[in-house]
Amino acid sequence: MDVGFIGLGRMGRAMVGRLVAAGHTVRVWNRSPGASEGLAGVIPVASPAEAFRGDAALTMLADDAALRAVIVEGGLLDQPDRPGLHLGMSTISVALARDLAAIHERAGVPYVSAPVFGRPDAAERGALNIVAAGPEAEIVRAAPLLDAMGAKTWRFGTEPARANAVKLAGNFMLISAIEAMGEACAFTEAHGVPGADLLDLLTSTLFAAPAYKNYGALIAEERYEPAGFALRLGAKDVRLALQAAEVAGVPMPFASAVRDGLIEAIAHGDGEKDWSALARVSARRSGRA
Amino acid sequence: MDVGFIGLGRMGRAMVGRLVAAGHTVRVWNRSPGASEGLAGVIPVASPAEAFRGDAALTMLADDAALRAVIVEGGLLDQPDRPGLHLGMSTISVALARDLAAIHERAGVPYVSAPVFGRPDAAERGALNIVAAGPEAEIVRAAPLLDAMGAKTWRFGTEPARANAVKLAGNFMLISAIEAMGEACAFTEAHGVPGADLLDLLTSTLFAAPAYKNYGALIAEERYEPAGFALRLGAKDVRLALQAAEVAGVPMPFASAVRDGLIEAIAHGDGEKDWSALARVSARRSGRA
Amino acid sequence: MDVGFIGLGRMGRAMVGRLVAAGHTVRVWNRSPGASEGLAGVIPVASPAEAFRGDAALTMLADDAALRAVIVEGGLLDQPDRPGLHLGMSTISVALARDLAAIHERAGVPYVSAPVFGRPDAAERGALNIVAAGPEAEIVRAAPLLDAMGAKTWRFGTEPARANAVKLAGNFMLISAIEAMGEACAFTEAHGVPGADLLDLLTSTLFAAPAYKNYGALIAEERYEPAGFALRLGAKDVRLALQAAEVAGVPMPFASAVRDGLIEAIAHGDGEKDWSALARVSARRSGRA
Amino acid sequence: MDVGFIGLGRMGRAMVGRLVAAGHTVRVWNRSPGASEGLAGVIPVASPAEAFRGDAALTMLADDAALRAVIVEGGLLDQPDRPGLHLGMSTISVALARDLAAIHERAGVPYVSAPVFGRPDAAERGALNIVAAGPEAEIVRAAPLLDAMGAKTWRFGTEPARANAVKLAGNFMLISAIEAMGEACAFTEAHGVPGADLLDLLTSTLFAAPAYKNYGALIAEERYEPAGFALRLGAKDVRLALQAAEVAGVPMPFASAVRDGLIEAIAHGDGEKDWSALARVSARRSGRA
Repeated sequence: MDVGFIGLGRMGRAMVGRLVAAGHTVRVWNRSPGASEGLAGVIPVASPAEAFRGDAALTMLADDAALRAVIVEGGLLDQPDRPGLHLGMSTISVALARDLAAIHERAGVPYVSAPVFGRPDAAERGALNIVAAGPEAEIVRAAPLLDAMGAKTWRFGTEPARANAVKLAGNFMLISAIEAMGEACAFTEAHGVPGADLLDLLTSTLFAAPAYKNYGALIAEERYEPAGFALRLGAKDVRLALQAAEVAGVPMPFASAVRDGLIEAIAHGDGEKDWSALARVSARRSGRA
Repeated sequence: MDVGFIGLGRMGRAMVGRLVAAGHTVRVWNRSPGASEGLAGVIPVASPAEAFRGDAALTMLADDAALRAVIVEGGLLDQPDRPGLHLGMSTISVALARDLAAIHERAGVPYVSAPVFGRPDAAERGALNIVAAGPEAEIVRAAPLLDAMGAKTWRFGTEPARANAVKLAGNFMLISAIEAMGEACAFTEAHGVPGADLLDLLTSTLFAAPAYKNYGALIAEERYEPAGFALRLGAKDVRLALQAAEVAGVPMPFASAVRDGLIEAIAHGDGEKDWSALARVSARRSGRA
Repeated sequence: MDVGFIGLGRMGRAMVGRLVAAGHTVRVWNRSPGASEGLAGVIPVASPAEAFRGDAALTMLADDAALRAVIVEGGLLDQPDRPGLHLGMSTISVALARDLAAIHERAGVPYVSAPVFGRPDAAERGALNIVAAGPEAEIVRAAPLLDAMGAKTWRFGTEPARANAVKLAGNFMLISAIEAMGEACAFTEAHGVPGADLLDLLTSTLFAAPAYKNYGALIAEERYEPAGFALRLGAKDVRLALQAAEVAGVPMPFASAVRDGLIEAIAHGDGEKDWSALARVSARRSGRA
Repeated sequence: MDVGFIGLGRMGRAMVGRLVAAGHTVRVWNRSPGASEGLAGVIPVASPAEAFRGDAALTMLADDAALRAVIVEGGLLDQPDRPGLHLGMSTISVALARDLAAIHERAGVPYVSAPVFGRPDAAERGALNIVAAGPEAEIVRAAPLLDAMGAKTWRFGTEPARANAVKLAGNFMLISAIEAMGEACAFTEAHGVPGADLLDLLTSTLFAAPAYKNYGALIAEERYEPAGFALRLGAKDVRLALQAAEVAGVPMPFASAVRDGLIEAIAHGDGEKDWSALARVSARRSGRA
């Protein structure tokens, strides 16, 4: 397929690599120039408008503001040459996803929300889990693209914002797992048991899952740099979850507790560390860090 | 080995079955009579004193009060005929574990704390994970018993109370996982995504671990009866964790939030349901139950 | 003085009444027409631009969106005929207050933030407490207006946003007092002591302050309608506080807990009741409502 | 009246002074000797049994353990010479109050729970607020004693434990006010407004009550030593409230949040400071202390 890709961060670059490898023609654009360097087989274009056309346009931008700036305020939906489909893969707010769905509908451009679970290394292996919602026929049509990037595409119906809600719920569960490990480690360490020993037991048994194994190792080794996913960005996702939850009428005490902890972590200089550094807050509060 | 076993609840009976199958001689006693019925190959005795002797005595009682009543107030450590080792497998408080360590030391009876992770079906298969702490030589000596009951014995040093701290930390992490799933499901359901769909994705990927798969299934199907582990008992374990945490100087905001939710669940009549029914609290608070 | 007043809600009308009584000339404008009916001595004008001129313009609008729409997007600062001073009395976000300060500076119009504490009846008596921040000379110049409306003007320096931070802090303390009373009443009622009896004691002694007496009476009598201040608006103010706190790096666990409770209250249909109806959440959670 | 008084801490000594001044005969006993030194007009006795007799015995001990040790385990209710009434004025648990009620009923000694609000200086002036519950006739009979010590006796029915529930609810509201001030000050300070300025405004207006004025001044001046009421003791009272709340089925998220903060304060060495030092936790969490 002939596609445009907007947003060449670490995730975006890895995803583009998979698309190229699968034989797709990929025009790429990034706000800060030079981002396409070293990306073999792509066609760098000079404006987002040149990327936002063809069979499909994929966006993988940092946040709501970036997506709004490029797509909405950039007027991409008002130009004559528009894509056959917009696949929005960024982690954005439920509110923006709803806005995008409405704006695209008015513009006559099909829109599918398709945020992903997985870190850059999973993106490089095409092993992402893609969470898709939007018109069914469009998701089917996008299959060659989705299959190139992900291990599996999980469908959540025709309303795009639902995919974003699922993505935010997943990130909420990840940071909750981190907080639970942080508190549990502070607890056992105050009883003379190293957190590493506790986590060795639990992540080998009841909690033998990637989320716990990966973050458990970082916490056990206090290896928070370089950040796989910056705590500051995790705080943003928790904020998006809480905002959507408030609109939807859902109290989330764990999300609230995690929010307080993340703010405290940032106030103590850990915003650019991996978000598993939230565990340091539990240690500090108990006088152990 | 010639052992005594005190406490024939569902867990105790299954553990006794494994000991008998492994060829050990097992004298059994239970507070309420008749509990040994249907247990093949055991020797029912009429008093706890007759069970608390031999090569080793194992206790698997409901809570601090039961253990205190039988062992401490029952004066078992003051009788002439005492066991070569006391293997305390109940989920009890850190404080009682410390008391027991001291009392046994005065009495000259070796004491090992060895609480377990696993439900009755795991106990029947000898697939428990046993968390042991106490004098190293004693744990080695108890290996034939521990190996009969568990898939693995995890050692946490020589101070018995550490094993109990680890057990409480693990239960805290379980109930935190339940709460996180409950909030996440309430969140996505308010956005039109059934909790079952969210959990299907997450427990197949990032959270593909027994804790999430088992409890996720119960939550997705709202199958809270019969209780695998009663919510009321889970609330007790959270209370024990919070008490130990307070003494040890560790704030645990997740444990506090979970405590509030469990109290609310009990106040709404769910105390005898499975503790995964904590998820109903999130649903109710958001006006969906 | 010759002033314009924008925003004729219950508070705005009462404040305008005081200004007129003090002899000021008051041009008034409101988005929904007819709001000036029954307001003696005022000069209704047909557009916000006609109000936003003269010696001073006062704004008392519902929220950020209304103020942004009328002042910023309405381009009032770009028109040739501008006021000698803008006195912003609405409860708005810290972020908007900062934006307004910058925008006014560029436009060469002095800006003072002056939100108020007090309900409509206090406004009618000129008994508001006014929280002012902005250029000192401007606050002095506005004294005839401020003194007409308030019992006292409290100054918080020259940076306008500080007044808004103080206002949000005050509202946070009010809703925290409500939550504390709600929990305390649920607690004593579960012990057989009516909340009214508890509050009678406490609001006569340690807590003999308007905040506790007023809201305590509403809670004791469960008299949540008509709303003095709608719970939904209170939730908005807590949201503004939490947003500013996050930006400023301040975790606020009480604000988080209150936020969860307010969402729950709204989800159960109490959004239009007085915000002291937050106490109903404590009652419901304990199975008593 | 001829009374005995057990427990000569700062509060007890001040209360004894009032009883003597009102003309009562007061036998006094304290666990650590020498406590009656400097107390004019009292009759020191050598054993609690000698104090626990006469027209009434008053107890003002530090906690559950002390009261249990002296009265229950000390067997005072089994001795032949018993008081006409036991007035229990200590801040104790609801559970112990219930036990005491039952034990006294079996022993045929009337029991009234009468904990107090007020600090030592209020006790010296006879300005305590006394919270009484128990048999009505007994409270009437005790009036000469209660009136000597308190400004007012507030009655809460015939079940003694209710008075203790009210006392714990009041202390919960005090510490909640402290926490709210702590968070509000951290919030405005991060916006450039000294906490002292915020509190000056609020404690002069909406929160013009002793609780806020007194603790607000300590927080504004960071004057946490010497402790009027030690944070460690405040933590104990919150624990008692949470325990009773759990038994009674009442979730208390504010109490939970305060508990976490108090544990953190103690972990950072502030346990012996005034409990208003809880405000330091908010400052530390936001990176300002």
